[in-house]
This record gives sequence, structure tokens and C-alpha cells, in this order.
Amino acid sequence: MTTTAHAPLRVALLGGGTVGSQVARILTEDAAVLRDRVGAPLELAGIAVRTPDAPRDWQADPALYTTDAETLVDGADVVIELMGGIEPARTLIRRALEAGIAVVTGNKALLAQHGEELYDLASRTGAQLSFEAAVAGAIPILRPLRDSLAGDRVTRVMGIANGTTNFILDRMDTEGASFEDALAEAQRLGYAEADPSADVGGDDAAAKAAILATLAFGTSYTLDQVSVEGITGITAADNEAATEAGYAIKLLAIAERVTAEDGTAGAILRVHPTLVPRQHPLASVHGAFNAVFVEAENAGELMFYGPGAGGAPTASAVMGDTVAIAQRIVRGGPARLRTPVAALPALAPAEAHTSCLVVLRVADQPGVLRRVAAVFEDHGVSIETLRQVQGADGPGASLRVITHRARQRDLDAVVAALGALDVVHDVVSVLRVEGN
Amino acid sequence: MTTTAHAPLRVALLGGGTVGSQVARILTEDAAVLRDRVGAPLELAGIAVRTPDAPRDWQADPALYTTDAETLVDGADVVIELMGGIEPARTLIRRALEAGIAVVTGNKALLAQHGEELYDLASRTGAQLSFEAAVAGAIPILRPLRDSLAGDRVTRVMGIANGTTNFILDRMDTEGASFEDALAEAQRLGYAEADPSADVGGDDAAAKAAILATLAFGTSYTLDQVSVEGITGITAADNEAATEAGYAIKLLAIAERVTAEDGTAGAILRVHPTLVPRQHPLASVHGAFNAVFVEAENAGELMFYGPGAGGAPTASAVMGDTVAIAQRIVRGGPARLRTPVAALPALAPAEAHTSCLVVLRVADQPGVLRRVAAVFEDHGVSIETLRQVQGADGPGASLRVITHRARQRDLDAVVAALGALDVVHDVVSVLRVEGN
Repeated sequence: MTTTAHAPLRVALLGGGTVGSQVARILTEDAAVLRDRVGAPLELAGIAVRTPDAPRDWQADPALYTTDAETLVDGADVVIELMGGIEPARTLIRRALEAGIAVVTGNKALLAQHGEELYDLASRTGAQLSFEAAVAGAIPILRPLRDSLAGDRVTRVMGIANGTTNFILDRMDTEGASFEDALAEAQRLGYAEADPSADVGGDDAAAKAAILATLAFGTSYTLDQVSVEGITGITAADNEAATEAGYAIKLLAIAERVTAEDGTAGAILRVHPTLVPRQHPLASVHGAFNAVFVEAENAGELMFYGPGAGGAPTASAVMGDTVAIAQRIVRGGPARLRTPVAALPALAPAEAHTSCLVVLRVADQPGVLRRVAAVFEDHGVSIETLRQVQGADGPGASLRVITHRARQRDLDAVVAALGALDVVHDVVSVLRVEGN
Repeated sequence: MTTTAHAPLRVALLGGGTVGSQVARILTEDAAVLRDRVGAPLELAGIAVRTPDAPRDWQADPALYTTDAETLVDGADVVIELMGGIEPARTLIRRALEAGIAVVTGNKALLAQHGEELYDLASRTGAQLSFEAAVAGAIPILRPLRDSLAGDRVTRVMGIANGTTNFILDRMDTEGASFEDALAEAQRLGYAEADPSADVGGDDAAAKAAILATLAFGTSYTLDQVSVEGITGITAADNEAATEAGYAIKLLAIAERVTAEDGTAGAILRVHPTLVPRQHPLASVHGAFNAVFVEAENAGELMFYGPGAGGAPTASAVMGDTVAIAQRIVRGGPARLRTPVAALPALAPAEAHTSCLVVLRVADQPGVLRRVAAVFEDHGVSIETLRQVQGADGPGASLRVITHRARQRDLDAVVAALGALDVVHDVVSVLRVEGN
């Protein structure tokens, strides 16, 4: 607990928004504790912002704000990038890594698009690059995936990785709200932006799926390898059908090891609304919280739960990375090597295995059940439950079918064939099921 | 992915039981993957057991089994201790650490009693000592507490750290079973031992509380600093009262920062049956699963969930530690320093703040409510809800009181005073509440 003789480490903070302000606060208010943990003072060298005199959630010494990010980076021991977006974040991070300066970032969009380039650059120059805050805010998930499971084999990761959509789905579930009303409430409470498309369209969750898969499988994946379906099509009727069958609807980011029909080992990355059994741990993640469910060969089923966003929680993850990097600078030792790259190519989502809830409006006449069931059977998809519900899902009879696990390609073919049956008025909804 | 020139690392396995067998299996079956991750082969040098030809869950090469643990330890680069119990585990671990040999252990009883001595020895000789498997089996909790939250301040840890008791309480909850019937079922299914006293009495959870607190607060705590109350006194009536009030009963291992009445900053460690609100994440931990709920100043509320026991899950945690240690041996770099020791002395449990559900059988006459309420008020304990329930909890009227948070000492005084009131026939139960 004594002050060491090691020189202070200069920390350059890029970005003075919600998370940046909290990082500046922690570096200032907890300076003594951080010094003891690191073995040297962490000195906030400056905060690069666009408008130095803008109002902040937490105000640092005014002399620390600067618009000259390059000079700040060049003089730093550790760069913390919290600007978000691709540029100028990408150029500034490259500048730091090329000079061998350690970087901590929470920039999921950048990592999901240009992660490979940055990991390679860091490997080449020996600079540290850490990004715990980029996925699921405060939840420690990257370190457990990378280190704690280093002697195991991760087979699947399923994440509630976007708090906005979880809030909306949770309100639809607990209050029977429509998507539009739940979204409006999320916007009123500050959980959703004025333009919510990146959240409700699934793109934010898709960026996190790419990063989670990269860590889980030791292979670099990018955003364009993730198949994405958002929650804008989810209706109160979908929720009612899910509830009646014993499920909750969650927007999941899923990354799993699979073997394609031709025998290729690979990974499938997908984001879509998913039915989760009510007793599954993911079903009890409420409000804007996030959670990541991990399946590994030996460990079995693990789940990591916590706040997925917010200034202080995300700053906690940033500071965890910063302390680890600073300890390594002070104590010496080699940089952490990149996870060895495995050969798990991204495969087409049609190769995924899943089960489905299919809701159909059908003609109310004899023989319909038999003809519907035959369509599933013809495509090699077996039925777990088939229930007729009168008066639900619009006029006529309603059929609710839950399949056993089948290849997505075959399920797609079933849905197409059902739509062409004369006794089927409408395919009301098709929702995938995981966690059974 | 190429084999390096580094010499194989010799792994000495002490113990060939459920977990030891799985570690031997993983070291053998996954040798190629482990070699790639570590940068050198992990060579299983031998397995020290009492009876070399006993039947095993997984049978290694018969030539590897030995009764000569000392010689095995002396020739090792890494020792994995999975014998359990105090001796000879303690002497063998000391022998390894004194020689600078890294040790991985899952021995919670040993760490909770002699952890300080072993941490000190490891610090002195620079040997690594890792023990992720000692708490909550496969759940990665120690690394997140130590590393991911290194820039934050943990204020409270609450763990469902014993799968046997969680299974029993869950059965009592979901099936209305008595404690005796639920225990018998747990024994039949192999979740409880023939002598279940260490589990149901709370001692196993208490050992984990000491280890969790040691990591969360950077201070060494031992088993005798944990106040312990098991679940043997929990009745179906307790469960009914908890459910009616919106809670589930869980056996929690709790470690929290507190300030005592005299201003001393410290920590309180306790294990007791606890009411948890139904919507709290800990309430949805079912069966024999474990979970650790962590509150930190900046991160907020985190939870880590997974299997708390079992051969393969616990072996996964052991292997995570083993790979991390082996990587450090191969790549060089200093041993991880001990967490700086903070000055958080263990305080008396009477200093804890909690709320309580108090169930009373009272005389069915006017003025009883007023007199009962006055007892709480006289001790400065405020009441959140007070409900009269006819026909429950035995003859006469039943009162169910939930208090606001108050100091344990004052709650104890309230309970004593209630028991002395002439209109109170019986204090049926007193259950503490957390997570509100």
C-alpha cells in the first residue's frame, strides 16, 4: 500500500460524453486506490473533445479538455477511446497502436467492422488492445470467455446484448403493450433514442454478436457475417402465443459452433427474436439489463448478467481494462497474445438447427390438421406440439405448431409450403426457439 | 498454431476422484488444443491417489497412478490439488509453493482455514496459486472479482454457493415439500450426501463466503469470521409465508462492506436463509445451480450463474487456471501480485443492516396490532408492511411483519421484546430479507 517509485502513467481520454465523463471522474476521485492497485499513479493527461466548453455529466479540470487528440495520443502511456463511431476513432487508435501505446476502447461498431485490422496491428507492434466495455457494458464477459474458459471449448453463446430491445420486449410481455407503445415508453424514459433503428433493427446486437463470437471461437468475425432480424415485426399477438406456449420473446445474439450438411465445421452468427422457455435463466432478464449465456463442453451452462449500458457501469469495465494494462506496464511481462486463430469459418444461417413456433390461420374444416402435419413430415421436420386455438390470431381457426430441432433450411421450406396450402389463410408468425 | 520449441510442462495431479478424473481426461483428450493455447505441451506426469487400482470415472494410463505424492510434486512444473480436506493437501501444497512450483487447487475448506498462510508463502517464493474451482464450481467468479472489477469498488457479494441446499429449498418452494422430504429426494438423486450436515448446516457455504470476501475486499478472512445459520429450521410454513409476501427463500453467503455504529469501516460475513424478492435474479436460480450476485459502486449489479459442482464443470475451472499459469511459465513475466490488502476488519454480524419478515402467532383480541407495532417503534425499527392472516401459522391470529432495513442488533432486540409480550403466543419465524 506504499507509493512506489514508478513514474506516473499518462492516460489520454478520447471522448467526454456519458462514459468518458465517468471515466474522468473515477480517475480523479479514486486516484489513491488506483495508484495502490497499479503500483504507479494514473495521471489523466487530457480529454479530447469536439467542444471543450460543452456541459458535461462530470466536469474535470477545464484545462484538461483539448481538441488536439493527436498530440494527446502521442504523449500517452494508455489511450482510452470512448468517442464511438468509425472516424476519427479508427485513425487515432491506429496512431496509438503503431507507436506501441496501449489502447482501451468501448467502440463496438469499430471492432465489429475493423477489429481484424486493429488486432493485427496490435499483435505486430506488441501494443495492448482491450475492449471489455464494447460488449454488454459492465458485465465481465470477455475475460471469462478468453481466460476462464481457456481450458474448455465454447459451443454456443446467446446474449441479450441490447438493453433497449429487452426493455421493449419486457414491457410488451408484462403489460401486453404493443411494440409502438413500448417503444414510445422506452423513448420517454431515455432507454431508446429518437432514431431507434440501430437498436430495434438488431444492428447493435449484431455488432456484439461478432465480437462475442470472435472471443468465444478465436476467429475474427465481422458484422456482415451476422444475419440480422430486429423486433419491429413482433406483435402483442406473438407475445400472447409465446406466453401461452410457455415462452418469453427475447432478442438474442447467437453464435454457435455447427457442422454444415457437407461436413464443414464452422460458426453461425445470427440475431433474431427468439422464444426462450420461461424457466430458462435468460427469460428472467428484465428491463434494460443484459445477459450472456454461454455453453461450454465441460463447464456446461453459464450466465453473466448485469447493466448493458450507462455511464458508470460502462466506465467500470473501461477501468478494469485500464488497471490490467497499467499493472502490466509497471510490472513488466509480455503483452497478452492474441487467442490462437481457429479455423471456424462463418457458415450460412440456413445451416443452423433450431426449433420454431409457427402460428397459422387456417380454414375451419375437417382434414386441415392432417394436411398441415403432412407438410412438416414431408420436409423431415418433426412436430413437438400442435394446438388448435379458437378465436385467437384473427378469424377462422388458429394452429400453433412447435417443431423439434431441425435445420433452418428445412424449416424455411416448410413455411413456404404452408403458405402455398389452400387451407392456410395466413402464416401469422414464425418464431425461433432456443434453450429447450 | 505451430508446435513451439518450449519443453513440455509437467503437470502433477493430486487426487483421482470425480474432478481429478475429469482433469486427467481433458489433459489427455484435449492435449493438442491445450498445447496450442499454452505454447508448450501439458504433460500429465502422474496422478497421486490412495489406491492406484480403484475404479475411476475416467481411467488414465494405469502407469500414471502413484501413491508417492511427494516425488510427483517435486518433479512438477504445475501441481493440481484435488484431494480435498486439510491433510495431506496442505503439506503437499506447501511443499510445492516452497519450491516455487505453481499450484492450482479447488480445496475450499483448506483455503477458508489456511488461505492466509498459503497466500503468504506463494508471495514469498513467487509461486503461482490459483483457485477458481474452489468457489461456485465452473462459474468464473474469482477472475471477474479480481481483474474485471479492479477499477471499481465491490460493496457486496451475495452467493447461492451451495447446490445441495438450493436444490432442497427449490423443491420446498415448487412442490410445497417439507425439509425432510426435500432432503430425502436430494439424497436419492445424488445431490446430497448420506451425512448432509456440512451442506444443510451452512458450513460449506461459509467457507465460500470467506473466499469470496477475501477476493472482493482484498483482505484475508477465515471461516471462523463467518456467522452461520443453515436451513434445517426452514419449514413449509416459512416458505408459504415468504411466497405470500412475494419472496423466495435462498441460503445466501453474504459479504458486505459496512460501517459499524462506532464508525469503523469493515466487512460482515454471514450465511443464513434469506428472503429474496421473486423478481430478483437470485430468485430464478433453480435446482442445484449456483450464482454469485455482486454489487459494485460503478458497475452496479452483476450476476454470475452456472453449475456449482460436478466433475466436468469443476474441471473446466481447474483447466482455466492451469492454462493461465502455463502461459505465464512459457511466455515469462512476473507472477500476479496478491491483491493489496485493505484494512477491512471482520465486524460482528450484529452490525449488519437488513430487513426482516417476522411471523407471530398472537392473541385474537383488540389492541394487539398497536402493541406489536409499538415494540418495533420503541427500538427504532420501522415497519414496511404488517398483515394479519387468519388460520395460518397455527391457532389464533397470525401477524406477518416486514420491516424496513435496520441494524441486526435492533432487530434482535425487537424479536426478544416481542417474545416477552403477553399477547404474543409464539414467534413463529424470523427471516432476513435481501435484495429489496
